[in-house]
Amino acid sequence: MRIDIISAVPALLESPLNHSIVKRAIDKKLVEIHVHDLRDYTEDKHNKIDNYPYGGEPGMVLTPQPIFSCIEQLQSERDYDELIFTAPDGEVFKQSHANQLSLKKNIVILCGHYKGVDQRVRDELITKEFSIGDYVLSGGEIPALAITDAVVRLVPGVLGDAESALNDSFQDNLLEAPVYTRPAEFKGLKVPDVLLSGNHQKVADWKHEQSVKRTKERRKDLYKKFKKEH
Amino acid sequence: MRIDIISAVPALLESPLNHSIVKRAIDKKLVEIHVHDLRDYTEDKHNKIDNYPYGGEPGMVLTPQPIFSCIEQLQSERDYDELIFTAPDGEVFKQSHANQLSLKKNIVILCGHYKGVDQRVRDELITKEFSIGDYVLSGGEIPALAITDAVVRLVPGVLGDAESALNDSFQDNLLEAPVYTRPAEFKGLKVPDVLLSGNHQKVADWKHEQSVKRTKERRKDLYKKFKKEH
Repeated sequence: MRIDIISAVPALLESPLNHSIVKRAIDKKLVEIHVHDLRDYTEDKHNKIDNYPYGGEPGMVLTPQPIFSCIEQLQSERDYDELIFTAPDGEVFKQSHANQLSLKKNIVILCGHYKGVDQRVRDELITKEFSIGDYVLSGGEIPALAITDAVVRLVPGVLGDAESALNDSFQDNLLEAPVYTRPAEFKGLKVPDVLLSGNHQKVADWKHEQSVKRTKERRKDLYKKFKKEH
Repeated sequence: MRIDIISAVPALLESPLNHSIVKRAIDKKLVEIHVHDLRDYTEDKHNKIDNYPYGGEPGMVLTPQPIFSCIEQLQSERDYDELIFTAPDGEVFKQSHANQLSLKKNIVILCGHYKGVDQRVRDELITKEFSIGDYVLSGGEIPALAITDAVVRLVPGVLGDAESALNDSFQDNLLEAPVYTRPAEFKGLKVPDVLLSGNHQKVADWKHEQSVKRTKERRKDLYKKFKKEH
């Protein structure tokens, strides 16, 4: 899988792409990630990539030319399955989208930028618009990193068997049960007895029960979906 | 405002905290951000900060000791308004949370870690648990960066007047209208005439209309809230 990330602030992306699961996937040659600096594609003589919006609004908007040039260049080199734009008014990104994207071959992610990109880019080039949640960020780089991480960890071979993504939260509309590790007692706080019992069936039952309880308490919306399916 | 971020992978946080709005807020001395490496707080002789979960599950869990030591150290130095943990089973983070947090003085954000942290940390120390959306990430660092960015840009003085956060998406349950910038025509694609008209009232009416239309088309949930209030 190949992901091309287009950004006005490419330096922001550096450390997250060079650590954690994404770095491991790159090292294993399971994923290629290419970051493109919009400034490398501008034909403006002052090297500008943004300009004032029409209609007298405050803030700056990314101009269409550098984005068209960058994406046209990439498309001349290979076919892309999706051209994604990150924006607060996009479709709300969910685990099911991460699952679908993890099966694709080539993806572009264009990072939105405060106060946005020219609408003609969205109308003509973009195939999917995603918001990572109902809050406003100063740019699309963190959303691009979130989408990249969520997708890359699902690419076959990236996680070891021991870390299988199958029992993650959201895969079955249930939140995960609480987890405990060593020591069994810390500052007088004890791990639940059942987890120390060595009885696999009891442990499994407890986890499922806790998982359902936590989902019911914290996320009525997910709990309803879970109940419908079971 | 001061934000302390506690992480098992602190290097991941570097570039996003050194760019964009967060860097600007730090430079203006409006915000202090301190990153803490959990490994600096472990008393384990092999410098370990995680261990196997009880109950025979795959994956590793952050042990309680380094987290307790780090947070107790911070709490001995100042009072914290919130101790936040990022986790997929937390409350779904929204713009209203960003608004509230931007008024606080001292916040801790503890980054979750695949496959989680010992539940005793959550029970004893954490005051707020946030999920940034219904998808699974390999760690809590990207969520911590998202929360930090969303909050910091609302701290008074961080954004200039010209970038006021007041007409952001979500502040009034409406998505923003499309934006256009120069040139007025690009590859035969034209900016809507009304935006070039110079008629402020017409422009404002068009934007509001587009905003309502986009919200109705894309986010029925927000549209319902908007209608209830108007």
